[in-house]
Amino acid sequence: MTPAALTSTETWSLLALSFACFGIIANTLHGDGEPLIASLAFSGIAFSASYSMIRWLGPTFMKAGLKGKDLSKVHKKEIPETMGAVCAVVYLLIVIVFVPFPFYKDIVAATSGGGNRDILMEVEIVEKGRFLHRFPHNKLASYLSAILSLQSVCILGICDDLFDIRWRHKFFIPAFASIPLLAVYFVDFGVTQIVVPKPLQSYLGTLFDLGALYYIYMAAIAIFCPNSINILAGINGIEVSQSLVIAFLLVINDCLYLLVPYPHPATDSHLFSLYLILPFIGVSLALWWHNWYPARVFVGDTYCYFAGMVFAVVGILGHFSKTLLLLFIPQIFNFLYSAPQLFRLIPCPRHRLPRFNARTGLLEASVTEWQHPPKPIISLALKVLDRLHLIRLTMNKEGQVIESSNLTILNLWLVWFGPKREDRLAMEIIGMQVVCGLLGLFVRHRLALWIFDADNLTV
Amino acid sequence: MTPAALTSTETWSLLALSFACFGIIANTLHGDGEPLIASLAFSGIAFSASYSMIRWLGPTFMKAGLKGKDLSKVHKKEIPETMGAVCAVVYLLIVIVFVPFPFYKDIVAATSGGGNRDILMEVEIVEKGRFLHRFPHNKLASYLSAILSLQSVCILGICDDLFDIRWRHKFFIPAFASIPLLAVYFVDFGVTQIVVPKPLQSYLGTLFDLGALYYIYMAAIAIFCPNSINILAGINGIEVSQSLVIAFLLVINDCLYLLVPYPHPATDSHLFSLYLILPFIGVSLALWWHNWYPARVFVGDTYCYFAGMVFAVVGILGHFSKTLLLLFIPQIFNFLYSAPQLFRLIPCPRHRLPRFNARTGLLEASVTEWQHPPKPIISLALKVLDRLHLIRLTMNKEGQVIESSNLTILNLWLVWFGPKREDRLAMEIIGMQVVCGLLGLFVRHRLALWIFDADNLTV
Repeated sequence: MTPAALTSTETWSLLALSFACFGIIANTLHGDGEPLIASLAFSGIAFSASYSMIRWLGPTFMKAGLKGKDLSKVHKKEIPETMGAVCAVVYLLIVIVFVPFPFYKDIVAATSGGGNRDILMEVEIVEKGRFLHRFPHNKLASYLSAILSLQSVCILGICDDLFDIRWRHKFFIPAFASIPLLAVYFVDFGVTQIVVPKPLQSYLGTLFDLGALYYIYMAAIAIFCPNSINILAGINGIEVSQSLVIAFLLVINDCLYLLVPYPHPATDSHLFSLYLILPFIGVSLALWWHNWYPARVFVGDTYCYFAGMVFAVVGILGHFSKTLLLLFIPQIFNFLYSAPQLFRLIPCPRHRLPRFNARTGLLEASVTEWQHPPKPIISLALKVLDRLHLIRLTMNKEGQVIESSNLTILNLWLVWFGPKREDRLAMEIIGMQVVCGLLGLFVRHRLALWIFDADNLTV
Repeated sequence: MTPAALTSTETWSLLALSFACFGIIANTLHGDGEPLIASLAFSGIAFSASYSMIRWLGPTFMKAGLKGKDLSKVHKKEIPETMGAVCAVVYLLIVIVFVPFPFYKDIVAATSGGGNRDILMEVEIVEKGRFLHRFPHNKLASYLSAILSLQSVCILGICDDLFDIRWRHKFFIPAFASIPLLAVYFVDFGVTQIVVPKPLQSYLGTLFDLGALYYIYMAAIAIFCPNSINILAGINGIEVSQSLVIAFLLVINDCLYLLVPYPHPATDSHLFSLYLILPFIGVSLALWWHNWYPARVFVGDTYCYFAGMVFAVVGILGHFSKTLLLLFIPQIFNFLYSAPQLFRLIPCPRHRLPRFNARTGLLEASVTEWQHPPKPIISLALKVLDRLHLIRLTMNKEGQVIESSNLTILNLWLVWFGPKREDRLAMEIIGMQVVCGLLGLFVRHRLALWIFDADNLTV
């Protein structure tokens, strides 16, 4: 049921794709070097490599005990777990091999290809004579710190998948992983000022220095993104699909900045973002193919942390973390909605995924049973939420709450629209996410001018 | 037998050490900043953290299946395996948190602590006005690439410990891990020239450009160091002890460069080396304590790869890889001596560690049994080696070889000096290594002048 070998069609398609990509990369080396095109080609290779390795390594993972049962199927067979780790490793290798492409040509141009690499001259010439789609050399450290953070989250994610770390410890895994990012930010930029919205400018000026708070803000973004993806999970394909949607929306956002005349201050940041997002899309598509309903592999916590960290890193280093959060609206809602259970105001079972009804083959909203009736204040709150159709309660004859639906966006969707097949639920949630995301981008690029002075399209 | 809790003496000692170290670090923040002292203090914290975590995580590792039997004991009880991964993670966290210490103060000095961080001005001023023990800011990328390589080897090492990768694949793990190092070297320095020894200068000039060969040479160093430590293994404490010896010898070598008047071109490289080696000594001492005879934990392949990569990284980025190899003499001998088995000229059993004789409690040289008599040429070679006392053979009545001792330095030592207790053998091998290493340093700093023009002590 989980064939480890690739079919011959798959083998030939992947080989053809890889050869085409290698050809493109070899070509970019000849001319001026086009890092963006090279990045696209590397993403193709990332796709092929993850696709094959997910297939080949499945049996190895199962033998090492990294396997799980799919609870929402009639036949609960075991399939490989933690396959996101494979994608993460392929991704990291690709972005590391990519390092010379955006950074090297500057130096060749600046030093006439010779050995004389005096620092002062180099920086001066690079600042004057640089080409579109290339980075100044001093951004290398940011790029490396991004990779360091992603590697850290990958190591800690693998530890989590191996040892099943407790929820309250897991929560801080991304915080540890964001340390390289923050340390290099501290050394390399140290810019802690934010643009003040128009209505507040008379009080705070146009720029306001957050100081140490800015680092706390960045750490909070790095903690939120991975964890919010990790808790919007539980049905086949949902983790990878939501990550892919965010990634594609970020690509659209980045492309908006590449269309404006070049010497725009944000262009470099968005190229940076593309270089990190494109290979991520490559590995995620390969994982999606195997994880979509009916899943043949599970992604594991590693993937969720890793995906969230990719977004956090590009948002932080690209200085567009507010825009990033606009693309996380469903995740923010899900986090806020889950909060009462996460903070144990309401009992929280080990798994909150929707319940599979083997008779109908559909998913239904899962419930938490109240061993003791809730305290009056919580009971009141639950009944208000019930009236607002934000939860479904079951009460006994005395009017006491004995069951409440679990507080996740997936269960809420099922409460609202009734039982659904697993893939149908995933598609609807993803559709909703796409609508929210496009709306977010519209707000960012059209409505933000009401409260901020300048935007990419109006400079 | 493997108590997870720390005794109260241990708890208080580690707490006291940690507090002292935190105090020192806080103090270095006030004054000019003394990265070298901060690095020493961080190493103390690294020791305490790994010591406690090795103890606490033991049961967790065993539950996750990361455990092994000690074959060289009367009671072959199971103990936690892969504990080197804990050390590696602690180490990586420490060197990442350390980033601002050597790099930040330059910027503060160069920009008067203000927000004006124009690149040109910064580099200019830093070049003129920098302090002893501080790095120019442009070395940040090398430091980060070193950490990236170490993280890569750590991820791949953990995969190896989990999935038990085949020997011929394992061999290339360090090659993959060295990619970040080589990529950043390519972007950042690109220096591929070597100093030519005096006798050859009339043919090649004083500097010779190796070009692409230099990258192959660096990759070879990165492949050799980790693998050579990984194959000199098999008895309690030997992996950690040999790594500690090399680390201490490197520290001695680095200190020789700190004693000369400051503006010596190699001082920065050797500070760089100290910043990476000192925390390594911290985590290794903690592991050594638990891994020395009788071992309470095993180190796993992760540790061997990780240790070797630390040495390779400082050797490559510090431009003293030839000196580094002088400290690897026992490992080089062991590798060459093992080669006939590694390349399957002679049969190679799964484990080549010395055989434990339960009756005497001593280790004896282990042997390979020849299923078929060896080919005449190999048989001849074996008999020559036997005559030279470099192998021990057992022959049948027809004079055919039926058993030969396994080709590792540990077995050879036992062939030469007879059966020994496990800790005695480890101590003698380590003693031999110390002598070889000190001899290597003497050769480097006293005799090298015969074939090279300049040295640190004679400039």
